[in-house]
Amino acid sequence: MGDIIVQKYGGSSVATTEKIITIAKRLIERKKTNPKIVVVVSAMGDTTDDYISLAKEITDTPDKRELDVLMSTGEMISASLLAMSLKSMGCDAISYNAYQLDIQTSGTHGKSLIDDIDVSKIEKSLDEGKIVVVTGFQGLDDIGDITTLGRGGSDTSAVALAVKLNGKCEIYTDVDGIYFTDPRKFKDAKKLEEIEYEEMLELASLGAQVMHSRSIELAQKYQIELYVGLSCSDIKGTYIRGMKNMKLEDKVITGLATSDDDVAITIDIDEEKIVDLFESIANENISMDMISQTAPINSSNITVSFTIPKEDLVKAKEIVSKYVLKNKIIIDENITKLSLVGLGMKHTSGVASKVFNILRKNGIKVKLITTSEIRITCAINSKDTHAAVQGIAREFNI
Amino acid sequence: MGDIIVQKYGGSSVATTEKIITIAKRLIERKKTNPKIVVVVSAMGDTTDDYISLAKEITDTPDKRELDVLMSTGEMISASLLAMSLKSMGCDAISYNAYQLDIQTSGTHGKSLIDDIDVSKIEKSLDEGKIVVVTGFQGLDDIGDITTLGRGGSDTSAVALAVKLNGKCEIYTDVDGIYFTDPRKFKDAKKLEEIEYEEMLELASLGAQVMHSRSIELAQKYQIELYVGLSCSDIKGTYIRGMKNMKLEDKVITGLATSDDDVAITIDIDEEKIVDLFESIANENISMDMISQTAPINSSNITVSFTIPKEDLVKAKEIVSKYVLKNKIIIDENITKLSLVGLGMKHTSGVASKVFNILRKNGIKVKLITTSEIRITCAINSKDTHAAVQGIAREFNI
Repeated sequence: MGDIIVQKYGGSSVATTEKIITIAKRLIERKKTNPKIVVVVSAMGDTTDDYISLAKEITDTPDKRELDVLMSTGEMISASLLAMSLKSMGCDAISYNAYQLDIQTSGTHGKSLIDDIDVSKIEKSLDEGKIVVVTGFQGLDDIGDITTLGRGGSDTSAVALAVKLNGKCEIYTDVDGIYFTDPRKFKDAKKLEEIEYEEMLELASLGAQVMHSRSIELAQKYQIELYVGLSCSDIKGTYIRGMKNMKLEDKVITGLATSDDDVAITIDIDEEKIVDLFESIANENISMDMISQTAPINSSNITVSFTIPKEDLVKAKEIVSKYVLKNKIIIDENITKLSLVGLGMKHTSGVASKVFNILRKNGIKVKLITTSEIRITCAINSKDTHAAVQGIAREFNI
Repeated sequence: MGDIIVQKYGGSSVATTEKIITIAKRLIERKKTNPKIVVVVSAMGDTTDDYISLAKEITDTPDKRELDVLMSTGEMISASLLAMSLKSMGCDAISYNAYQLDIQTSGTHGKSLIDDIDVSKIEKSLDEGKIVVVTGFQGLDDIGDITTLGRGGSDTSAVALAVKLNGKCEIYTDVDGIYFTDPRKFKDAKKLEEIEYEEMLELASLGAQVMHSRSIELAQKYQIELYVGLSCSDIKGTYIRGMKNMKLEDKVITGLATSDDDVAITIDIDEEKIVDLFESIANENISMDMISQTAPINSSNITVSFTIPKEDLVKAKEIVSKYVLKNKIIIDENITKLSLVGLGMKHTSGVASKVFNILRKNGIKVKLITTSEIRITCAINSKDTHAAVQGIAREFNI
């Protein structure tokens, strides 16, 4: 019979009844080669936003339990419409919600975690030849109240079902796969055929918004193969899978992310005050990145650089001004953070120096650099971004 | 602690968040005198119609199971918003749906009947001082699928809850009570303070659309007192209750209904063919009423009169023409059916002759008359309707 396929369609993919009908048609085609299909759906289009507006008309601070009740109806609507559509085309189908599958969750309303799913009803319906449609994004807590899973919830529902059904998971969305770098910024960015979980997580943390980290982490934990592709299209997408299922010779660099959302701050500070400064910044929920410091040249004064989100600059300046020595503060708003991600870095030495060399050859100055096991991040002048990306892509043969 | 009050608000009463907020405010006031309140809500305004349109975009014949899933979300939305509103005003509240209360139903999707409700969660929440909001119109079948109750469903949910909680039931809607006769047709119609179940059922069968028969029947079966009134208003409505709870001396006539929707047909027919005729008409789903026949004067020919809905006239004429003798057919399109309802008729003799007399004194000719235990129906000329209603109201002192 082959593997069970768990597909997930996001809100934009089911935004209209027309789109739902198109999905139904493609599911019927797909069923010919994959007879066991489970479909997880999100709420139609802007339904979730509409519900939030409705709740805000009632109160600015809606009760979280009741907000989850409201939210959960969005997926019930799209699930019933898709099942209806399939049945109207002569394909047996059935929709199930969180109650019917006993999707147990824990945590708090609005950001619950899936503990378990009873898939016996799904298995029975699949055996009866039905396409099973499941409401994404929702579950139940231990007293039977409706919960929702928060950001990336429906993706997580789909991966969790694939885990329990020992199936494969296909995430259909409004982008046609994972790219080496953001195709909206770099027109000739190449799409990846496959990417390893860890690399995808690193790219997600750098702002690749195709999938939320939690669903990738869950897939990694249970080694569930994920496919990310454009809904209702034959364009080939990207597989997210484990190392042992990937091509033997992996690339050194799989992905490249750029961000123009930060500023670099460089200050002179008394070495003893540095912990105070970092704590004060953290207390304001400002996330610091790319921290680097030079050793004290004389006395206890040191020079420290770090980046913060542009939107936090005013608040950060206020804090920093209390610690800076002799007004020595340099704020650089024209930086771009360039991050290279690749599992290959683990066992390929000298990647950082190779990157340095490429940038130098292209006359690009590296302002800051930080590295982790599978990532190198450089802050460069924003105007050099395109030259840097092209140089790296060329030299690493991507 | 006093009785548990089960209130029900119809779709027009919860059509906007503004209206929901108003209901919440009034509930908080009411809780001061009646601490145990359960509120059953319908879907907001036109939600149900909107859902039907959505389903029709998918297919003209939506699967009934999936349509019920879709429909059931309407009440979840309004229930969550009302609970949210109460909580935002500092009044503890909680919403429950069909799953959480295990509202067991039987029958078919779209018109299920309530078998049982597990009210333990409601009782616990009431004991905790919460206002309990329940989704009307929905239940579960024996395999855990969502069902809906069909026309009058939310009223029936409310009465069923009142039965299980041994409480009183208040139905809030867009009319301010039950009137002696239709106030849209007769401006000075008097509102009734109370009406007996049987009388209300008779009026409902005559087209009084305030409440659906099934909820009245359920209330009658378990002797649950119903109150019907305008939502969010201090105008006094009408109680529907059992005889033993009513004033000792009941009125002879409680209600009067008029209908201009029928035509009277009078034909000469062979006595032996009459059963054939009635069967032919019934086979076309045309409902005949007020059948009366005169004894045969000579041979086997008789004269028969009956009424049918105007909309069925063309079809009925076709059928009748096959049976009529010598083309003797009279069609009277200018009739009004005037029905008087009252339990008092049971033990007050001569009501029919009194009605006859009143009409005769006012120069009104009775074309047809039929009587049942608690109802008298006359067909009169439509132009006489106002005079007849006024004469009867005056003579019966209403």
